[in-house]
Amino acid sequence: MKSRKHAQTRPAPVPVALLMIDVLTTFHFPDGEAILHNALAIRDNLVALKTRARKLGIPVLYVNDNFGDWRSEKEVLIGRCLESAGAEFVRPLVPDSEDYFVLKPLHSAFYMTPLEVLLQHLEVETLILTGLTSTSCLSATAHDANMRGYDLVLPPDCSCARTPKEHQAALFQLETDAGAKVVSSKSLRLPHLIRSASASKL
Amino acid sequence: MKSRKHAQTRPAPVPVALLMIDVLTTFHFPDGEAILHNALAIRDNLVALKTRARKLGIPVLYVNDNFGDWRSEKEVLIGRCLESAGAEFVRPLVPDSEDYFVLKPLHSAFYMTPLEVLLQHLEVETLILTGLTSTSCLSATAHDANMRGYDLVLPPDCSCARTPKEHQAALFQLETDAGAKVVSSKSLRLPHLIRSASASKL
Amino acid sequence: MKSRKHAQTRPAPVPVALLMIDVLTTFHFPDGEAILHNALAIRDNLVALKTRARKLGIPVLYVNDNFGDWRSEKEVLIGRCLESAGAEFVRPLVPDSEDYFVLKPLHSAFYMTPLEVLLQHLEVETLILTGLTSTSCLSATAHDANMRGYDLVLPPDCSCARTPKEHQAALFQLETDAGAKVVSSKSLRLPHLIRSASASKL
Amino acid sequence: MKSRKHAQTRPAPVPVALLMIDVLTTFHFPDGEAILHNALAIRDNLVALKTRARKLGIPVLYVNDNFGDWRSEKEVLIGRCLESAGAEFVRPLVPDSEDYFVLKPLHSAFYMTPLEVLLQHLEVETLILTGLTSTSCLSATAHDANMRGYDLVLPPDCSCARTPKEHQAALFQLETDAGAKVVSSKSLRLPHLIRSASASKL
Repeated sequence: MKSRKHAQTRPAPVPVALLMIDVLTTFHFPDGEAILHNALAIRDNLVALKTRARKLGIPVLYVNDNFGDWRSEKEVLIGRCLESAGAEFVRPLVPDSEDYFVLKPLHSAFYMTPLEVLLQHLEVETLILTGLTSTSCLSATAHDANMRGYDLVLPPDCSCARTPKEHQAALFQLETDAGAKVVSSKSLRLPHLIRSASASKL
Repeated sequence: MKSRKHAQTRPAPVPVALLMIDVLTTFHFPDGEAILHNALAIRDNLVALKTRARKLGIPVLYVNDNFGDWRSEKEVLIGRCLESAGAEFVRPLVPDSEDYFVLKPLHSAFYMTPLEVLLQHLEVETLILTGLTSTSCLSATAHDANMRGYDLVLPPDCSCARTPKEHQAALFQLETDAGAKVVSSKSLRLPHLIRSASASKL
Repeated sequence: MKSRKHAQTRPAPVPVALLMIDVLTTFHFPDGEAILHNALAIRDNLVALKTRARKLGIPVLYVNDNFGDWRSEKEVLIGRCLESAGAEFVRPLVPDSEDYFVLKPLHSAFYMTPLEVLLQHLEVETLILTGLTSTSCLSATAHDANMRGYDLVLPPDCSCARTPKEHQAALFQLETDAGAKVVSSKSLRLPHLIRSASASKL
Repeated sequence: MKSRKHAQTRPAPVPVALLMIDVLTTFHFPDGEAILHNALAIRDNLVALKTRARKLGIPVLYVNDNFGDWRSEKEVLIGRCLESAGAEFVRPLVPDSEDYFVLKPLHSAFYMTPLEVLLQHLEVETLILTGLTSTSCLSATAHDANMRGYDLVLPPDCSCARTPKEHQAALFQLETDAGAKVVSSKSLRLPHLIRSASASKL
């Protein structure tokens, strides 16, 4: 398949990936306090979904803002989050050495990042989209993923926005206009998703 | 400025452009009838805004879906629209030889199109975003324009969606999360917009 | 496969495409006279290869500079070429309604064009790269195609440069550093190429 | 200027950047031994040019292959180089905390990387292109930089290839077809280059 030629990364064992957008953050931005409040309410869902994904071989990809800092290491970025108001949210979500980590300079996980090459190397066709926030970076990422032909699953209890109303509106739009399936993480049958994604590759 | 080097196109007389997204259409797509109904209600606003823009030297750029047809001319595409249910909407909006015309293969006006090069050649900094529909192609385009640093103006009476409620939600999200100014075309003071855009270039 | 979701274009009957880069030209550019001289020497090879490709169902894609003209139709562009010093070269190569036509704003056929989406829709994996000139637009295109994982075939008798020496140097570099197979059009066994490309898709 | 809106990075003090392509490497690739031999011959030129650049406020950007490793830190990558046959070349070129560092997944420094956003934030217009190798990653990068409108300076004594002959051919092509100025690092008057780049921004 295209662009496998250059791959040294092995394909993922399954053609599904879990994307965690901007979960490493200090919440030092406009409306950060409101978003932190809503983020704490989904934190345990994110942790649980990540745990389930890992057990099934679903690769976990952190795609995170670099906050305009082009010179620091991932560890410095994480360190800042753990010293900030966001620590309570970030601590259980700190990536480990098995997770993939992609820095993004702007809103979409695809814009000016190597994400698409990585997904091609991993031979992933379906993305589970989670993180912060549904009205901003998840919306931009979902539109970009849809244009590139990825199947999208968007668990409403694994992302949030400033307010529940704005969150609902964003989910509705991504369902009707960006091809996303909106299914709560509890109802999400990962083995079934993997089988569907594998079948669609053939 | 960057990429002017290769330009044969002259800069536009003003650093503002009017983008008309997917106004050339047959409305043969899901919910096409509902969207046509709402499109007819904004048609005269689009015509009036285009007329005002042209008088001030604002370049008009049609960015339009190719509907998966990679071999036809613009004239063939327009011909099909004029023979379809969409004729009543499309007829007064048919581009002429002064307008720019860019085909897009997917939702965003920026994705896999020369739009960004054209905007750089025209030395445009501010985009007035109009057309169909606010929840889909305008949302994808607005996120992409915002990431590329363009100032965005979004007249709510020059775009539409399936329902007024979905249209309002899309406008609200693009205002809060993609930096768009939502101003009705009647209240939009184009000479003022041109002066602001010119000042921000310095 | 990815991005087939949105396709209305049917896959090509075979996973090989013939790219003809910048063959529609007036030769009004620096060194245009020298390049026209060398272009005339490969013209009949291009015509013959196109004829053979068409018989086997290989789609023919013209990817052509817009010469900074963002408002004209393909027919206007071709008309200018046929009235220029380039007419003798261009006339037998004028595209017809079966050919695909993609305008490019700069050197590479991939940069800010829909080419990649079109190739995905056509389910093409191997590109035969021809046209003008090997040291410029073909080099930029070949590097871009190689990064995207396409297999490349570069018939040395179907492209040219300012001088034979520069042409040879470009071919050598693209062979050693961009993965291109350099095979003369006469030795190119198209049915074999189609079989190899089809096998590599599995 | 466009895309400064989102910048947290401050503009560089001068509109020139020094790009060092793939200088952090183990040389474990085809022809690695020959390339290491030639790389050692330019090593001190690279060190000297970097020192001169830093004194004048020219930002130094390492753009480096990730070698298909999507999970490791920069420090791990550098560690591997320092334990390899490449250590003699790499050691004096190890980046420090003032340098910028961008991972690239493929050949061009621009393809699927945030380099362009970073250059816009830094308000850089002129690139000094150095590193490995002139026939491969520097060629792909130079074509991409040229299409994006950057002015290019290519010191022949700060890059290399498998053989001097291939190096010369690559330099010649990038000079004639990608707008690069080929000037030896010793003859390169950096203050003059800064003044020219500053003037061209106005």
